[in-house]
Amino acid sequence: MAEFDLIELIRARAMHSRGDVVLGIGDDAALLEVPAGQRLVACTDTLVAGVHFPEATAPQDIGWKSLAVNLSDLAAMGAQPAWAMLALALPLADVRFVEQFAEGFMELARQFEVALVGGDTTRGPLGITVTAMGFVPEGGALLRSGARAGDAVFVTGTLGDAAGALEMRESGIGNRGPETRAAAALPARLNRPEPRVAAGLALRGIAGACIDVSDGLLEDLGHLCCASGVGAEIDADALPLSPVLQEAFPAAQRRGFALAGGDDYELCFTASEADSARVARAFAALDCGATRIGRVVAQPGVRVFDANGKTLEPRRRGWQHFAT
Amino acid sequence: MAEFDLIELIRARAMHSRGDVVLGIGDDAALLEVPAGQRLVACTDTLVAGVHFPEATAPQDIGWKSLAVNLSDLAAMGAQPAWAMLALALPLADVRFVEQFAEGFMELARQFEVALVGGDTTRGPLGITVTAMGFVPEGGALLRSGARAGDAVFVTGTLGDAAGALEMRESGIGNRGPETRAAAALPARLNRPEPRVAAGLALRGIAGACIDVSDGLLEDLGHLCCASGVGAEIDADALPLSPVLQEAFPAAQRRGFALAGGDDYELCFTASEADSARVARAFAALDCGATRIGRVVAQPGVRVFDANGKTLEPRRRGWQHFAT
Repeated sequence: MAEFDLIELIRARAMHSRGDVVLGIGDDAALLEVPAGQRLVACTDTLVAGVHFPEATAPQDIGWKSLAVNLSDLAAMGAQPAWAMLALALPLADVRFVEQFAEGFMELARQFEVALVGGDTTRGPLGITVTAMGFVPEGGALLRSGARAGDAVFVTGTLGDAAGALEMRESGIGNRGPETRAAAALPARLNRPEPRVAAGLALRGIAGACIDVSDGLLEDLGHLCCASGVGAEIDADALPLSPVLQEAFPAAQRRGFALAGGDDYELCFTASEADSARVARAFAALDCGATRIGRVVAQPGVRVFDANGKTLEPRRRGWQHFAT
Repeated sequence: MAEFDLIELIRARAMHSRGDVVLGIGDDAALLEVPAGQRLVACTDTLVAGVHFPEATAPQDIGWKSLAVNLSDLAAMGAQPAWAMLALALPLADVRFVEQFAEGFMELARQFEVALVGGDTTRGPLGITVTAMGFVPEGGALLRSGARAGDAVFVTGTLGDAAGALEMRESGIGNRGPETRAAAALPARLNRPEPRVAAGLALRGIAGACIDVSDGLLEDLGHLCCASGVGAEIDADALPLSPVLQEAFPAAQRRGFALAGGDDYELCFTASEADSARVARAFAALDCGATRIGRVVAQPGVRVFDANGKTLEPRRRGWQHFAT
């Protein structure tokens, strides 16, 4: 099967159209129209088999996740997603894989009205690079650099579920007792993360700084603090954990997942104390919720405290991209 | 070495700035400003080690080529390049490789004033996905679909040099007689293709249709014809071949390279007979030249004729992405 037949398979499933796509898949490049007064927001993220997802992951889930991790980056900027491009490397021209991959990819794309406007398919070890593009009004983007000492630190949704799912998979638990519920619920958090696009949009004009939690809370909040020239203190007991994670894992382990597990794709953001009520109002209309987990301080670094004010030293601080 | 140190290595070399980059590398996504009245042109292409370049290729050349193949797609649209994003998968956090890769990438980026605005580095089999973005005025893009029966078919530069370089590498020739000159000249065509950006810009308003020749002339001209609902006839003896290719390879072999070799990154375009003089004037100011190689006809398909009007049947028609 030639590249062009695979592209056709994908194109046939990419029929979602938008008025701002002048020319989509099928020429040397896409032609796109950014609305007046809007800035283009663009990001790109790669998933590699065996590194970012287990080899046995369902193709539909790989498709979903490869777009989700990019929409999560757009969400962290407060951007409205619009377009995506897909570069897919495959060991073989596997029609079934491509069909199922496209099914998962497009399911999420439809949910956010994202048009697939271009890409590349090639032979190679299984890997997917997606480029996502969207818009923010001029001056409206959420940056990492806007946190100020005294701000509150929030996180959307719950943390640690994806890490819990990985642990269950690796340790083989999940077929007895409370783990049964976890086995049913947690893998979806790992395989089908929900990018917090609505939260990002709602936080325009409210959040001082924002980042998505992909490498683990401590790691990503650390980047936000670096970019803002501040530090942060986290209340370990305030970390939002899902009921199933709490049932399935002991306290220290689930806390470790929440602090450093990675793959959460929640938003971590800061807001001034004066804006706490606005944060609450913004999330009243959203499914995911937002939890206050700490505060921004002048001293650099991210520190974690328990209920007694004792500093905790997490064993891991985040996902190491080049760990062996 | 963590991902963030590698990103820092790349960022330190990506300091070329542009006024339209509101925010480059360092946040969840880039913030970019498309000029008023311009359309965004976006493409993405992947290079995989052992598939798109020999494993032993110099990192500088891999860096150059990974950007060049994308700028070539922008050139084929008549676009002015502006920004790029780089997704780099590496087996190891190899600082020397990243430095040299970035050196080659940035050398070409500087040449076209392309700002590197974002990306991703990750562990995985060596592979590079670049996304390139640029602009065309509203209505000014060169499309594949604008060829009409009766138009002339042109190609920029020379064809087949990259395929000649690959053949020399694979057959081990190149150390004697006329091949010596070829051995010195041809590998650069394979490893450091020059995207025909200036040609694409000069062809706005002149070319009816345009495509870049990446998979081989017959294959790519075939796509252009399909998109335009036409066919084409090529004069085999009119194909532009470099003097070194002519010295190093017999007639049938070099013709095969020119028709189906791939990796040329020249532009193939059509123009009406009435515009022939405009094509000549446009290329008078350019280094690469353009050669008339045939004509657009109503009958679908691409046919090749020799000087006696006899149809030639090429053994290969182009690069098969999933050939084994």
